[in-house]
Amino acid sequence: MDILLLSNGKISGNNYVMEFASEAIVEQIQRTKAKNLVLIPYAVIRSSHDDRVALVQQTFDHLGLDCKVTGLHRSEDPVKTIQEADGILVSGGNTWVLNKTLHDLGLVGPIRKAVLDKGIPYIGWSAGTNIGCPTIRTTNDMPIITGAILPSLNLVPFQINPHYLEASVEGHFGETRDERIQEFLEINKHEPVVGIPEGTWLHILDGKLSYHTANEKSLKLFSYGKDPVYYSAEDDVQFLMEHSC
Amino acid sequence: MDILLLSNGKISGNNYVMEFASEAIVEQIQRTKAKNLVLIPYAVIRSSHDDRVALVQQTFDHLGLDCKVTGLHRSEDPVKTIQEADGILVSGGNTWVLNKTLHDLGLVGPIRKAVLDKGIPYIGWSAGTNIGCPTIRTTNDMPIITGAILPSLNLVPFQINPHYLEASVEGHFGETRDERIQEFLEINKHEPVVGIPEGTWLHILDGKLSYHTANEKSLKLFSYGKDPVYYSAEDDVQFLMEHSC
Repeated sequence: MDILLLSNGKISGNNYVMEFASEAIVEQIQRTKAKNLVLIPYAVIRSSHDDRVALVQQTFDHLGLDCKVTGLHRSEDPVKTIQEADGILVSGGNTWVLNKTLHDLGLVGPIRKAVLDKGIPYIGWSAGTNIGCPTIRTTNDMPIITGAILPSLNLVPFQINPHYLEASVEGHFGETRDERIQEFLEINKHEPVVGIPEGTWLHILDGKLSYHTANEKSLKLFSYGKDPVYYSAEDDVQFLMEHSC
Repeated sequence: MDILLLSNGKISGNNYVMEFASEAIVEQIQRTKAKNLVLIPYAVIRSSHDDRVALVQQTFDHLGLDCKVTGLHRSEDPVKTIQEADGILVSGGNTWVLNKTLHDLGLVGPIRKAVLDKGIPYIGWSAGTNIGCPTIRTTNDMPIITGAILPSLNLVPFQINPHYLEASVEGHFGETRDERIQEFLEINKHEPVVGIPEGTWLHILDGKLSYHTANEKSLKLFSYGKDPVYYSAEDDVQFLMEHSC
């Protein structure tokens, strides 16, 4: 397996989607020799899926990679398209819509098979990272659809909170992100949550987990009954892969 | 019906829960002559339900109202307790846990009957306001439980976003609240969303809707394909009650 789970799409100063993780993406594509990349755009709600495909194609062109990005929404047989893909990209947007669409189209099994058994590369950002978890219970997104499905791809055995941030708006009394995650732990005492700030990502290469950051920001691990612990890109976080949900 | 739906529990400077809406609460309790108030505390995750009951009792004592607040979690027959209550209070916390517990305990019908048919007063804040809507699809809360239920009490025929705010953390690339609500509208084109900032509330008295604020902040109405519209406490918002979901 060769999985990149990015906190988000862009940070300040980026012109291209995933630009802050350029080096990791180039290495992954060269390692896996992927050419035919399928973008899953279902999380994108307020702009066209075709436009998102074009934006992501720009990223790969800019990186000088000989990859063709096609949108899964244009496929007449999405399962077959996943089975034939060299790589899977999953755009951010609304996690609820994305996850439900994967289930509605019968794509959960085929994607897991492609990524975990065949080892084709996976790159997700934001919502595309949320669905890499066992469930989408640590999404920041509003549940804008009536039929909510929580179990997801389970590519990693722990919950991730993407776009993780400690700051909140001054004077606002709504729960902070930390409070929301602590509420999650109160209900799910045996499921640690990994907060990854914008501009950071996780890489899972053949079962080995590593943390990376474009801006020195740390991963923050929340476990029930313990103070949160920060990890930098130099720290060993492999123990997270041994957690079973 | 005599329903108060508060954006949140406290604003800066408040010592008591719901203090910013004191006058409205005193008027409601005097109008309905309610004495036996039942607090639904299921949204409270990280402190005890008994403590929340005690805090809310303090509010009524401070207001000089001769009301006894009891927690529904202490009842051996929650449906009967709702049927015998003079008033229903619903605390903030996690909307997902609250809504699922109401369904699990068979309380949705009995609460609707008590509030809409018998006309006993209802006061909800934050999560307690979210469940007053047709569904909880416009909550800000993290879906921390595995079994998600979205339909809710449907006391008003439109969706409310409590703790509504326009500000966001500088440099953060996650969706703003407005973007999240616009995504909701993209999927649900015929369901306007009413954003109510902290320190504000809606009152529904015998079918008549009014908006109130302790801090001059406006209600913000989001409708598909239109620019959002602000309404102050002086404006007529009754048209929102004519919307059917």
